[in-house]
Amino acid sequence: MRISELARRSGVPVGTVKYYLREGLLPSGEPTSATQAQYGEEHVARLALIRALLGTGGLSISTAHAVLAAVDDPALSPHDMIGAAHSALPTRVESERPDLSTAQAHLRRWGWQVHENSPSVSALAQGLLALQAAGFDTPEQMLDRYARAAYELGEQDVTDLPMDSPAEAVRLVVIGTLLLEPVLLALRRLAQEDVSARRLST
Amino acid sequence: MRISELARRSGVPVGTVKYYLREGLLPSGEPTSATQAQYGEEHVARLALIRALLGTGGLSISTAHAVLAAVDDPALSPHDMIGAAHSALPTRVESERPDLSTAQAHLRRWGWQVHENSPSVSALAQGLLALQAAGFDTPEQMLDRYARAAYELGEQDVTDLPMDSPAEAVRLVVIGTLLLEPVLLALRRLAQEDVSARRLST
Repeated sequence: MRISELARRSGVPVGTVKYYLREGLLPSGEPTSATQAQYGEEHVARLALIRALLGTGGLSISTAHAVLAAVDDPALSPHDMIGAAHSALPTRVESERPDLSTAQAHLRRWGWQVHENSPSVSALAQGLLALQAAGFDTPEQMLDRYARAAYELGEQDVTDLPMDSPAEAVRLVVIGTLLLEPVLLALRRLAQEDVSARRLST
Repeated sequence: MRISELARRSGVPVGTVKYYLREGLLPSGEPTSATQAQYGEEHVARLALIRALLGTGGLSISTAHAVLAAVDDPALSPHDMIGAAHSALPTRVESERPDLSTAQAHLRRWGWQVHENSPSVSALAQGLLALQAAGFDTPEQMLDRYARAAYELGEQDVTDLPMDSPAEAVRLVVIGTLLLEPVLLALRRLAQEDVSARRLST
Protein backbone atom coordinates (compact mmCIF):
# COMPACT_ATOMS: atom_id res chain seq x y z
CA MET A 1 0.00 0.00 0.00
CA ARG A 2 1.03 3.61 -0.48
CA ILE A 3 1.80 5.96 2.40
CA SER A 4 -1.67 7.58 2.09
CA GLU A 5 -3.34 4.19 2.52
CA LEU A 6 -1.02 3.32 5.42
CA ALA A 7 -1.99 6.61 7.07
CA ARG A 8 -5.69 5.94 6.56
CA ARG A 9 -5.48 2.36 7.85
CA SER A 10 -3.54 3.47 10.95
CA GLY A 11 -5.51 6.61 11.72
CA VAL A 12 -2.25 8.59 11.72
CA PRO A 13 -1.82 11.69 9.49
CA VAL A 14 0.61 11.31 6.55
CA GLY A 15 2.85 14.03 8.02
CA THR A 16 3.14 12.07 11.27
CA VAL A 17 3.94 8.85 9.40
CA LYS A 18 6.74 10.70 7.57
CA TYR A 19 8.01 12.04 10.89
CA TYR A 20 8.19 8.50 12.33
CA LEU A 21 10.06 7.40 9.17
CA ARG A 22 12.58 10.25 9.54
CA GLU A 23 13.06 9.47 13.25
CA GLY A 24 13.72 5.81 12.39
CA LEU A 25 10.82 4.53 14.54
CA LEU A 26 9.07 3.15 11.45
CA PRO A 27 11.18 1.14 8.94
CA SER A 28 11.26 2.42 5.36
CA GLY A 29 8.93 0.89 2.80
CA GLU A 30 9.92 -0.85 -0.43
CA PRO A 31 10.87 1.93 -2.91
CA THR A 32 8.82 1.92 -6.12
CA SER A 33 10.17 5.18 -7.53
CA ALA A 34 12.41 8.07 -6.45
CA THR A 35 9.61 9.53 -4.30
CA GLN A 36 7.29 6.60 -3.57
CA ALA A 37 7.38 3.40 -1.55
CA GLN A 38 5.15 0.45 -0.77
CA TYR A 39 4.21 -0.45 2.81
CA GLY A 40 2.88 -3.70 4.24
CA GLU A 41 0.89 -5.05 7.18
CA GLU A 42 4.04 -4.98 9.32
CA HIS A 43 4.01 -1.18 8.98
CA VAL A 44 0.39 -1.02 10.14
CA ALA A 45 1.28 -3.12 13.19
CA ARG A 46 4.39 -1.08 13.90
CA LEU A 47 2.39 2.17 13.74
CA ALA A 48 -0.09 0.77 16.30
CA LEU A 49 2.85 -0.03 18.59
CA ILE A 50 4.43 3.41 18.09
CA ARG A 51 1.12 5.08 18.95
CA ALA A 52 0.82 2.97 22.10
CA LEU A 53 4.35 3.92 23.18
CA LEU A 54 4.17 7.64 22.39
CA GLY A 55 0.48 8.23 23.05
CA THR A 56 -0.76 5.95 25.84
CA GLY A 57 2.71 5.36 27.27
CA GLY A 58 3.77 8.98 27.03
CA LEU A 59 7.30 7.86 26.10
CA SER A 60 9.82 10.22 24.53
CA ILE A 61 11.06 9.49 21.01
CA SER A 62 14.40 8.28 22.36
CA THR A 63 12.81 5.99 24.97
CA ALA A 64 10.45 4.63 22.30
CA HIS A 65 13.54 4.01 20.16
CA ALA A 66 15.07 1.89 22.92
CA VAL A 67 11.89 -0.14 23.38
CA LEU A 68 11.55 -0.71 19.62
CA ALA A 69 15.20 -1.77 19.45
CA ALA A 70 14.41 -4.40 22.09
CA VAL A 71 11.36 -5.57 20.11
CA ASP A 72 13.51 -5.84 16.97
CA ASP A 73 16.40 -7.69 18.62
CA PRO A 74 16.07 -11.37 17.67
CA ALA A 75 18.47 -12.34 20.48
CA LEU A 76 16.17 -11.05 23.23
CA SER A 77 13.74 -13.34 25.04
CA PRO A 78 10.09 -12.23 25.28
CA HIS A 79 10.77 -11.48 28.96
CA ASP A 80 13.58 -9.04 28.10
CA MET A 81 11.49 -7.46 25.37
CA ILE A 82 8.50 -6.98 27.65
CA GLY A 83 10.82 -5.86 30.44
CA ALA A 84 12.24 -3.13 28.21
CA ALA A 85 8.73 -1.82 27.53
CA HIS A 86 7.69 -2.21 31.14
CA SER A 87 10.59 -0.39 32.70
CA ALA A 88 10.23 2.48 30.21
CA LEU A 89 6.68 3.21 31.41
CA PRO A 90 6.15 6.28 33.58
CA THR A 91 5.91 5.67 37.32
CA ARG A 92 4.95 8.06 40.07
CA VAL A 93 8.41 7.95 41.65
CA GLU A 94 9.74 11.26 42.99
CA SER A 95 13.20 12.40 42.03
CA GLU A 96 14.86 11.50 45.31
CA ARG A 97 15.84 7.86 45.68
CA PRO A 98 13.78 6.36 48.50
CA ASP A 99 15.12 3.81 51.02
CA LEU A 100 14.39 0.48 49.34
CA SER A 101 15.12 -1.85 52.27
CA THR A 102 11.54 -2.41 53.51
CA ALA A 103 10.19 -2.91 50.01
CA GLN A 104 13.00 -5.33 49.18
CA ALA A 105 12.43 -7.28 52.40
CA HIS A 106 8.77 -7.82 51.42
CA LEU A 107 9.71 -8.84 47.87
CA ARG A 108 12.21 -11.37 49.22
CA ARG A 109 9.57 -12.69 51.62
CA TRP A 110 7.19 -13.23 48.68
CA GLY A 111 10.02 -14.72 46.59
CA TRP A 112 9.33 -12.39 43.67
CA GLN A 113 12.03 -12.31 40.97
CA VAL A 114 12.34 -8.63 40.10
CA HIS A 115 15.21 -6.38 39.12
CA GLU A 116 16.64 -4.54 42.11
CA ASN A 117 16.62 -1.27 40.18
CA SER A 118 13.16 -1.71 38.66
CA PRO A 119 11.31 1.62 38.89
CA SER A 120 8.39 -0.24 40.49
CA VAL A 121 10.57 -1.23 43.45
CA SER A 122 11.19 2.48 44.05
CA ALA A 123 7.47 3.18 43.59
CA LEU A 124 6.61 0.50 46.16
CA ALA A 125 9.23 1.81 48.60
CA GLN A 126 7.96 5.35 48.21
CA GLY A 127 4.36 4.25 48.73
CA LEU A 128 5.23 2.40 51.94
CA LEU A 129 7.18 5.40 53.27
CA ALA A 130 4.26 7.74 52.54
CA LEU A 131 1.87 5.49 54.48
CA GLN A 132 4.26 5.38 57.41
CA ALA A 133 4.70 9.17 57.37
CA ALA A 134 0.90 9.58 57.44
CA GLY A 135 0.61 7.35 60.49
CA PHE A 136 -1.04 4.47 58.64
CA ASP A 137 0.02 1.09 59.94
CA THR A 138 0.69 -1.53 57.22
CA PRO A 139 1.07 -4.89 58.94
CA GLU A 140 2.57 -7.78 56.94
CA GLN A 141 -0.84 -9.42 56.77
CA MET A 142 -2.31 -6.42 54.95
CA LEU A 143 0.57 -6.12 52.48
CA ASP A 144 0.43 -9.85 51.84
CA ARG A 145 -3.24 -9.46 50.92
CA TYR A 146 -2.44 -6.64 48.49
CA ALA A 147 0.45 -8.64 47.04
CA ARG A 148 -1.78 -11.69 46.56
CA ALA A 149 -4.48 -9.70 44.76
CA ALA A 150 -1.86 -7.97 42.59
CA TYR A 151 -0.24 -11.30 41.77
CA GLU A 152 -3.49 -12.89 40.62
CA LEU A 153 -3.99 -9.96 38.24
CA GLY A 154 -0.38 -9.80 37.05
CA GLU A 155 -0.28 -13.53 36.43
CA GLN A 156 -3.34 -13.52 34.22
CA ASP A 157 -2.20 -10.32 32.47
CA VAL A 158 0.98 -12.09 31.34
CA THR A 159 -0.82 -15.33 30.49
CA ASP A 160 -3.18 -13.40 28.18
CA LEU A 161 -0.31 -12.03 26.05
CA PRO A 162 -0.06 -13.33 22.45
CA MET A 163 3.52 -14.59 22.61
CA ASP A 164 3.44 -15.67 18.97
CA SER A 165 3.35 -11.96 18.11
CA PRO A 166 5.97 -10.17 20.21
CA ALA A 167 5.29 -6.66 18.89
CA GLU A 168 1.58 -7.04 19.62
CA ALA A 169 2.46 -8.41 23.08
CA VAL A 170 4.57 -5.33 23.79
CA ARG A 171 1.76 -3.06 22.58
CA LEU A 172 -0.70 -4.80 24.92
CA VAL A 173 1.76 -4.61 27.84
CA VAL A 174 2.07 -0.85 27.42
CA ILE A 175 -1.65 -0.21 27.03
CA GLY A 176 -2.84 -2.83 29.51
CA THR A 177 -0.36 -1.94 32.23
CA LEU A 178 -1.13 1.76 32.09
CA LEU A 179 -4.80 1.94 31.17
CA LEU A 180 -6.03 -0.80 33.48
CA GLU A 181 -4.54 1.09 36.44
CA PRO A 182 -7.30 3.71 36.77
CA VAL A 183 -9.87 0.93 36.23
CA LEU A 184 -8.40 -1.11 39.09
CA LEU A 185 -8.34 1.91 41.42
CA ALA A 186 -11.94 2.86 40.58
CA LEU A 187 -13.05 -0.74 41.18
CA ARG A 188 -11.37 -0.81 44.60
CA ARG A 189 -13.14 2.40 45.66
CA LEU A 190 -16.48 1.11 44.36
CA ALA A 191 -15.97 -2.19 46.18
CA GLN A 192 -15.30 -0.26 49.40
CA GLU A 193 -18.51 1.69 48.81
CA ASP A 194 -20.54 -1.48 48.27
CA VAL A 195 -19.10 -3.19 51.36
CA SER A 196 -19.68 -0.06 53.43
CA ALA A 197 -23.31 0.13 52.19
CA ARG A 198 -23.95 -3.49 53.11
CA ARG A 199 -22.25 -3.48 56.49
CA LEU A 200 -22.50 0.02 57.89
CA SER A 201 -25.64 1.70 56.64
CA THR A 202 -28.59 1.94 59.01
CA MET B 1 -3.08 21.21 77.54
CA ARG B 2 -2.22 24.63 76.13
CA ILE B 3 -2.12 25.43 72.44
CA SER B 4 1.70 25.14 72.39
CA GLU B 5 1.51 21.61 73.78
CA LEU B 6 -1.30 20.73 71.35
CA ALA B 7 0.89 21.97 68.49
CA ARG B 8 3.87 19.95 69.72
CA ARG B 9 1.84 16.77 70.20
CA SER B 10 0.27 17.09 66.74
CA GLY B 11 3.37 18.14 64.85
CA VAL B 12 1.47 21.17 63.53
CA PRO B 13 2.84 24.75 64.00
CA VAL B 14 0.91 26.96 66.46
CA GLY B 15 0.06 29.40 63.66
CA THR B 16 -1.52 26.57 61.66
CA VAL B 17 -3.52 25.39 64.70
CA LYS B 18 -4.85 28.95 65.10
CA TYR B 19 -5.73 29.03 61.41
CA TYR B 20 -7.76 25.79 61.75
CA LEU B 21 -9.50 27.32 64.81
CA ARG B 22 -10.41 30.48 62.87
CA GLU B 23 -11.66 28.42 59.91
CA GLY B 24 -13.85 26.39 62.25
CA LEU B 25 -12.21 23.06 61.31
CA LEU B 26 -10.94 22.62 64.89
CA PRO B 27 -13.43 23.26 67.74
CA SER B 28 -12.42 25.89 70.31
CA GLY B 29 -10.80 24.81 73.55
CA GLU B 30 -12.12 25.46 77.07
CA PRO B 31 -11.32 29.15 77.86
CA THR B 32 -9.12 29.63 80.94
CA SER B 33 -8.58 33.38 80.50
CA ALA B 34 -9.32 36.08 77.94
CA THR B 35 -6.44 34.89 75.74
CA GLN B 36 -5.88 31.25 76.71
CA ALA B 37 -7.73 27.98 76.40
CA GLN B 38 -7.26 24.33 77.34
CA TYR B 39 -7.31 21.57 74.74
CA GLY B 40 -7.87 17.84 75.14
CA GLU B 41 -7.15 14.52 73.42
CA GLU B 42 -10.14 15.08 71.12
CA HIS B 43 -8.27 18.08 69.69
CA VAL B 44 -5.19 15.95 69.01
CA ALA B 45 -7.36 13.39 67.21
CA ARG B 46 -9.17 16.08 65.25
CA LEU B 47 -5.89 17.65 64.13
CA ALA B 48 -4.72 14.26 62.84
CA LEU B 49 -7.95 13.99 60.85
CA ILE B 50 -7.63 17.55 59.50
CA ARG B 51 -4.07 16.84 58.37
CA ALA B 52 -5.21 13.67 56.63
CA LEU B 53 -7.97 15.57 54.80
CA LEU B 54 -5.94 18.63 53.80
CA GLY B 55 -2.52 17.01 53.42
CA THR B 56 -2.89 13.43 52.17
CA GLY B 57 -6.37 13.97 50.76
CA GLY B 58 -5.56 17.31 49.17
CA LEU B 59 -9.05 18.57 50.06
CA SER B 60 -9.92 22.27 50.04
CA ILE B 61 -10.89 23.92 53.32
CA SER B 62 -14.55 23.99 52.28
CA THR B 63 -14.59 20.32 51.25
CA ALA B 64 -12.84 19.41 54.50
CA HIS B 65 -15.56 21.38 56.30
CA ALA B 66 -18.24 19.27 54.65
CA VAL B 67 -16.48 16.01 55.57
CA LEU B 68 -15.98 17.12 59.19
CA ALA B 69 -19.65 18.16 59.38
CA ALA B 70 -20.54 14.61 58.37
CA VAL B 71 -18.19 13.19 61.01
CA ASP B 72 -19.81 15.44 63.64
CA ASP B 73 -23.40 14.67 62.66
CA PRO B 74 -24.74 12.19 65.23
CA ALA B 75 -27.65 11.32 62.94
CA LEU B 76 -25.40 9.93 60.20
CA SER B 77 -24.59 6.24 59.94
CA PRO B 78 -20.92 5.23 59.66
CA HIS B 79 -21.63 4.42 56.01
CA ASP B 80 -22.81 7.98 55.30
CA MET B 81 -19.89 9.42 57.22
CA ILE B 82 -17.33 7.31 55.35
CA GLY B 83 -19.19 7.98 52.11
CA ALA B 84 -18.83 11.73 52.65
CA ALA B 85 -15.07 11.35 53.07
CA HIS B 86 -14.80 8.90 50.20
CA SER B 87 -16.67 10.95 47.63
CA ALA B 88 -14.67 14.06 48.56
CA LEU B 89 -11.39 12.35 47.60
CA PRO B 90 -9.73 13.41 44.35
CA THR B 91 -10.28 11.14 41.34
CA ARG B 92 -8.65 11.22 37.94
CA VAL B 93 -11.92 12.04 36.18
CA GLU B 94 -11.68 14.49 33.29
CA SER B 95 -14.03 17.45 33.20
CA GLU B 96 -16.31 16.07 30.53
CA ARG B 97 -18.94 13.64 31.74
CA PRO B 98 -18.21 10.23 30.20
CA ASP B 99 -20.89 7.82 29.01
CA LEU B 100 -21.63 5.73 32.11
CA SER B 101 -23.74 3.00 30.52
CA THR B 102 -21.04 0.31 30.12
CA ALA B 103 -19.68 0.91 33.62
CA GLN B 104 -23.17 0.81 35.10
CA ALA B 105 -23.98 -2.41 33.24
CA HIS B 106 -20.93 -4.10 34.79
CA LEU B 107 -21.80 -2.79 38.27
CA ARG B 108 -25.36 -4.12 37.93
CA ARG B 109 -23.98 -7.46 36.76
CA TRP B 110 -21.82 -7.66 39.90
CA GLY B 111 -24.71 -6.48 42.07
CA TRP B 112 -22.65 -3.70 43.65
CA GLN B 113 -24.62 -1.11 45.63
CA VAL B 114 -23.03 2.18 44.67
CA HIS B 115 -24.36 5.69 44.13
CA GLU B 116 -25.09 6.37 40.49
CA ASN B 117 -23.28 9.72 40.70
CA SER B 118 -20.29 8.43 42.65
CA PRO B 119 -17.11 9.95 41.18
CA SER B 120 -15.65 6.42 40.98
CA VAL B 121 -18.40 5.36 38.55
CA SER B 122 -17.24 8.17 36.24
CA ALA B 123 -13.61 7.13 36.80
CA LEU B 124 -14.45 3.53 35.87
CA ALA B 125 -16.42 4.63 32.81
CA GLN B 126 -13.59 6.86 31.67
CA GLY B 127 -11.03 4.09 32.17
CA LEU B 128 -13.07 1.64 30.09
CA LEU B 129 -13.51 4.19 27.30
CA ALA B 130 -9.76 4.91 27.23
CA LEU B 131 -9.00 1.19 26.86
CA GLN B 132 -11.49 0.89 24.04
CA ALA B 133 -10.06 3.97 22.28
CA ALA B 134 -6.56 2.45 22.50
CA GLY B 135 -7.76 -0.78 20.89
CA PHE B 136 -7.45 -2.88 24.04
CA ASP B 137 -10.13 -5.50 24.33
CA THR B 138 -11.62 -5.90 27.82
CA PRO B 139 -13.78 -9.02 27.79
CA GLU B 140 -16.21 -9.56 30.69
CA GLN B 141 -14.00 -12.32 32.03
CA MET B 142 -11.06 -9.93 32.44
CA LEU B 143 -13.12 -7.21 34.10
CA ASP B 144 -14.70 -9.80 36.41
CA ARG B 145 -11.20 -10.81 37.48
CA TYR B 146 -10.24 -7.21 38.23
CA ALA B 147 -13.53 -6.66 40.05
CA ARG B 148 -12.99 -9.81 42.16
CA ALA B 149 -9.47 -8.76 43.18
CA ALA B 150 -10.65 -5.21 43.96
CA TYR B 151 -13.55 -6.57 46.01
CA GLU B 152 -11.33 -8.78 48.16
CA LEU B 153 -9.20 -5.74 48.97
CA GLY B 154 -12.12 -3.35 49.50
CA GLU B 155 -13.91 -5.82 51.74
CA GLN B 156 -10.97 -6.25 54.07
CA ASP B 157 -10.22 -2.50 53.99
CA VAL B 158 -13.68 -1.80 55.39
CA THR B 159 -13.55 -4.71 57.86
CA ASP B 160 -10.30 -3.33 59.30
CA LEU B 161 -11.87 0.06 60.19
CA PRO B 162 -12.25 0.84 63.92
CA MET B 163 -15.98 1.53 63.91
CA ASP B 164 -15.99 2.37 67.63
CA SER B 165 -14.01 5.48 66.68
CA PRO B 166 -15.72 7.11 63.68
CA ALA B 167 -13.29 10.04 63.33
CA GLU B 168 -10.33 7.65 63.31
CA ALA B 169 -12.19 5.45 60.81
CA VAL B 170 -12.65 8.44 58.50
CA ARG B 171 -8.97 9.37 58.86
CA LEU B 172 -7.95 5.82 57.92
CA VAL B 173 -10.37 5.79 54.95
CA VAL B 174 -8.79 8.96 53.57
CA ILE B 175 -5.20 7.83 54.07
CA GLY B 176 -5.73 4.16 53.26
CA THR B 177 -7.80 4.77 50.15
CA LEU B 178 -5.36 7.25 48.64
CA LEU B 179 -1.95 6.06 49.83
CA LEU B 180 -2.48 2.35 49.21
CA GLU B 181 -3.25 3.12 45.56
CA PRO B 182 0.37 3.63 44.40
CA VAL B 183 1.34 0.57 46.47
CA LEU B 184 -1.27 -1.58 44.71
CA LEU B 185 -0.17 -0.34 41.28
CA ALA B 186 3.52 -0.96 42.03
CA LEU B 187 2.71 -4.47 43.28
CA ARG B 188 0.78 -5.29 40.10
CA ARG B 189 3.72 -4.21 37.91
CA LEU B 190 6.17 -6.17 40.07
CA ALA B 191 3.93 -9.24 39.91
CA GLN B 192 3.86 -8.94 36.11
CA GLU B 193 7.65 -8.74 36.14
CA ASP B 194 7.97 -11.84 38.32
CA VAL B 195 5.53 -13.87 36.20
CA SER B 196 7.27 -12.72 33.03
CA ALA B 197 10.67 -13.72 34.48
CA ARG B 198 9.40 -17.20 35.40
CA ARG B 199 7.49 -17.92 32.21
CA LEU B 200 9.18 -16.07 29.41
CA SER B 201 12.88 -15.72 30.12
CA THR B 202 15.26 -18.01 28.32
